[in-house]
Amino acid sequence: MMNYKNDFKNGIVIIGAGNVATHIALALKNANYSIKSIYSQTEKSAQNLAEKINSSFTTHIEKLPDNADIYVIAVKDTIIEDIAKKLNILSGIVVHTAGSVPMSVFESYFKNFGVFYPLQTFTKSRNLAFSEIPLCIEANNNNAENKLLNLAESLSKKVALVNSEKRKILHLAAVFACNFTNHMYSIGYELLSEQNIDFNLLHPLINETAKKATEMSPIDAQTGPAMRQDNKTIDMHLKMLKDYPEFEKIYRFVSDSIFTLNNKD
Amino acid sequence: MMNYKNDFKNGIVIIGAGNVATHIALALKNANYSIKSIYSQTEKSAQNLAEKINSSFTTHIEKLPDNADIYVIAVKDTIIEDIAKKLNILSGIVVHTAGSVPMSVFESYFKNFGVFYPLQTFTKSRNLAFSEIPLCIEANNNNAENKLLNLAESLSKKVALVNSEKRKILHLAAVFACNFTNHMYSIGYELLSEQNIDFNLLHPLINETAKKATEMSPIDAQTGPAMRQDNKTIDMHLKMLKDYPEFEKIYRFVSDSIFTLNNKD
Repeated sequence: MMNYKNDFKNGIVIIGAGNVATHIALALKNANYSIKSIYSQTEKSAQNLAEKINSSFTTHIEKLPDNADIYVIAVKDTIIEDIAKKLNILSGIVVHTAGSVPMSVFESYFKNFGVFYPLQTFTKSRNLAFSEIPLCIEANNNNAENKLLNLAESLSKKVALVNSEKRKILHLAAVFACNFTNHMYSIGYELLSEQNIDFNLLHPLINETAKKATEMSPIDAQTGPAMRQDNKTIDMHLKMLKDYPEFEKIYRFVSDSIFTLNNKD
Repeated sequence: MMNYKNDFKNGIVIIGAGNVATHIALALKNANYSIKSIYSQTEKSAQNLAEKINSSFTTHIEKLPDNADIYVIAVKDTIIEDIAKKLNILSGIVVHTAGSVPMSVFESYFKNFGVFYPLQTFTKSRNLAFSEIPLCIEANNNNAENKLLNLAESLSKKVALVNSEKRKILHLAAVFACNFTNHMYSIGYELLSEQNIDFNLLHPLINETAKKATEMSPIDAQTGPAMRQDNKTIDMHLKMLKDYPEFEKIYRFVSDSIFTLNNKD
């Protein structure tokens, strides 16, 4: 065990038992950190996660230990501050895991606090190589920052110090690159399902599109009718989408935006 | 050499020297087919491709041999018919490689014709495992269909008979899953570049998002503020996009569509 682990000998508390909490808790357990307790207001979720990582759990936030070294709040953005209000702790570092919530949410409540934002899309049932997940760290003082960096670097090869302003922009970019990208897949899925065409036919295309954008700039990687200004195909596609008004709007505006972006300068 | 290759002993002619033509020509060469000639109206493109595959080339379409077994027309959708008008051939099979052009484009010009549509995004400089690319085949008679299927199956593990109507829908779905997806990456890239944030931070997210959508349904894989109906984050993001009116419109409409799609039934 490395020396920095002495900083965590009083253990870690996980608040939340959803996708993000689950993946972080598993990563901590795999790295042999001691998880003192899990809190969730939903007993079944708390219990499920506690069983996976062999820790205790509670549905009463006031029963959490007050002397843990780190409290990881991995809950919906909107209830982070509610949780902070209810937490009664000594000197441990309190972090949240949200992209869009400023670190300052904690400043009225704790002495040592920060952010531990894993830039990834999490689904409970999927295994992820946690060591490949970028961890964006921020803290309100040097001591907390060093401890969080040590913790992060023991879990992932990709650790970055990112302030609240930049993290907010990263999260916005991630919404486009992940959530909106996934919706483009979903639209493809819907269009094909309607005609009983197998979505699997698109898998190699989906994989290569992602790979290409990470091996060259996505701006240079762009192909397709909008890029080629092939208005005949674009008009035909818009007609094919007449029964899907939302997809038709997306097709129109994304095509316009591809044209604008690739013709600037 | 397998027997079916007798069907191609008079060789193959490639018309076009762009991304699709290049990848198909290389795949044919690697499978030891004889490529008789390359045609492109741009001498440099024709020559470059001819050198790669060790074939002759011409910029005069009327000089192409009239007795090849297959003519692969891999050019912009809009000029496929112009090319067909100028081709003078005996009994070979003429195919195009376009998703959105019906096979019937050839019916006034040839006896044997069809479509050989590789469902992938092509960039000249990238190496692709051609055997993983779905090839969608259509032909105007059984004999041509069998020959095209044999040819396709010798190049790829993923061959499907797809008629013009279904191919058109596949192509539309592919525009969403590839071209529009890539534009979502590009928007992320733009937002980060503006603030000097490294786009590499998004790479693991991009890869996992693609992987997830091919290992479970993209509908089930959806995450993010629109999915969670987190209006506070959505409003903040829309404000952050006020200097990017096209991205702001896309954010709004894609979020609306995520909400609709995930709340139907």
